[in-house]
Amino acid sequence: MVVFLGIDGGGTGCRAALADASGAILGFGTAGPANVNSDVAGTFANVMAATRMALTGHDIPETDLVAVLGLAGANVSMAVAQLRQMLPFARIRIVTDAVTAARGALGGSDGIVAAMGTGSVFAVQRNGIMRQFGGRGFVLGDQGSGAVLGRALLAEALRADDGFAEMTPLLAEVLDELGGVEGIITFGFRASPAEFAAFAPRIVQGDDPAARRLFDAAVTELRDLMRILQAGDSLPLVFLGGLGPFYADRLRDLWEIRTPIGSGLDGAVRLALEEA
Amino acid sequence: MVVFLGIDGGGTGCRAALADASGAILGFGTAGPANVNSDVAGTFANVMAATRMALTGHDIPETDLVAVLGLAGANVSMAVAQLRQMLPFARIRIVTDAVTAARGALGGSDGIVAAMGTGSVFAVQRNGIMRQFGGRGFVLGDQGSGAVLGRALLAEALRADDGFAEMTPLLAEVLDELGGVEGIITFGFRASPAEFAAFAPRIVQGDDPAARRLFDAAVTELRDLMRILQAGDSLPLVFLGGLGPFYADRLRDLWEIRTPIGSGLDGAVRLALEEA
Repeated sequence: MVVFLGIDGGGTGCRAALADASGAILGFGTAGPANVNSDVAGTFANVMAATRMALTGHDIPETDLVAVLGLAGANVSMAVAQLRQMLPFARIRIVTDAVTAARGALGGSDGIVAAMGTGSVFAVQRNGIMRQFGGRGFVLGDQGSGAVLGRALLAEALRADDGFAEMTPLLAEVLDELGGVEGIITFGFRASPAEFAAFAPRIVQGDDPAARRLFDAAVTELRDLMRILQAGDSLPLVFLGGLGPFYADRLRDLWEIRTPIGSGLDGAVRLALEEA
Repeated sequence: MVVFLGIDGGGTGCRAALADASGAILGFGTAGPANVNSDVAGTFANVMAATRMALTGHDIPETDLVAVLGLAGANVSMAVAQLRQMLPFARIRIVTDAVTAARGALGGSDGIVAAMGTGSVFAVQRNGIMRQFGGRGFVLGDQGSGAVLGRALLAEALRADDGFAEMTPLLAEVLDELGGVEGIITFGFRASPAEFAAFAPRIVQGDDPAARRLFDAAVTELRDLMRILQAGDSLPLVFLGGLGPFYADRLRDLWEIRTPIGSGLDGAVRLALEEA
């Protein structure tokens, strides 16, 4: 009997689901973080722990499993190659967690997924073929993400202090909170993407003029990217992540917005079944 | 007899000049780095070493000196306060190296200085009063600087790889040099501002369409900042730094461009004489 394993692994934890050839779920498991680029050995340990938990009560050898792993950090090919060599499964496909999230969100339908959280990443499924775009990280990419929006807010506060931009209540509030210009500069050099992203809720909500300007610019940029990904089609959009609903509200006049039909774990199981 | 000390200190070295009340130079000295924010104790040691070299052959006690120090990192007030307590001079004024560079470049005349190197910083001298703008660092500021231009080039190469921007010969060259998309992402997370800035010469010269677009945008941004700093006046501009001549070429139809009349060390001595 062939058994299928789906893994959804991110920076905070990893989940496993076991399915038979009909797609019926035989078991679930969970374990710690699985960002393969940050920690190959830890990812291996947590993927195996979640898998063994899912296998509990079944007499199925690990070496019989057809596995699809959606992992954070899986765009770094050297880390992926190392992990692949360590895993005992019969068949192994490793993709980014963005691919499994998009597959879970869309199911079998064509569409575009925009995951707008601390980072951002896009996927297009067309005639059943999924392709990932963006997701290049905080320094050089992650258009429209919470971290990029938060960084833009702090940069605008510094410009306003110099008289290069209009000072607004939100910019003054942020200058005050972080200890003025020096405080913002110091924060900027040491802050993680998550710390920058913590400012995003105040940008996408409320009616501060600077916030509106920054979010309008981000919406315009995202709209242009979506147009390029549509390539003349009119695929439905599915938004994921904490900022997803705010972008969805701004783009629903242009394209159909759908809610995700499943999770990243559903996507991993679905992809595993297709490996048969 | 009152003796005046000017110090010009940056990330690679520090220079001292000693002058009498007429401005006649009595001695010079040099020593290692003096970025007060990076290293207060090292800055103190190097400022004193350069000062003692400048004092060689003179019977002048350090405690008699009227000193102006232009130091990298002097926009961080805690570091400046620590250094001030350690220095033995009779009078001490500590400003950023941008202020002494601008004072040296303009002398006594009104004008705007734009220092366009790895970073960027601006200063306006109006009726003899100098005010600094920008210079907020690579993450949140440094508009038009080499590091910001280089980072924009790498981000554009990633966008082009995704089909979000036109692929050009320069973008293809950069993708190839850094080992493709993965190589650029990895480089982006670890590169220093100087490493990003190493790409700037290829952006400001040549006729690659992506380079032209990025430099045009930077010129427009700098022009807008200069307009704000002019505040309706028509002050001459002085450009410093490796990218200065390229911006000067693009803005000489709008404002008079002057060459700097002196160095940052000249500026520090001049400011020290004004402390009398």
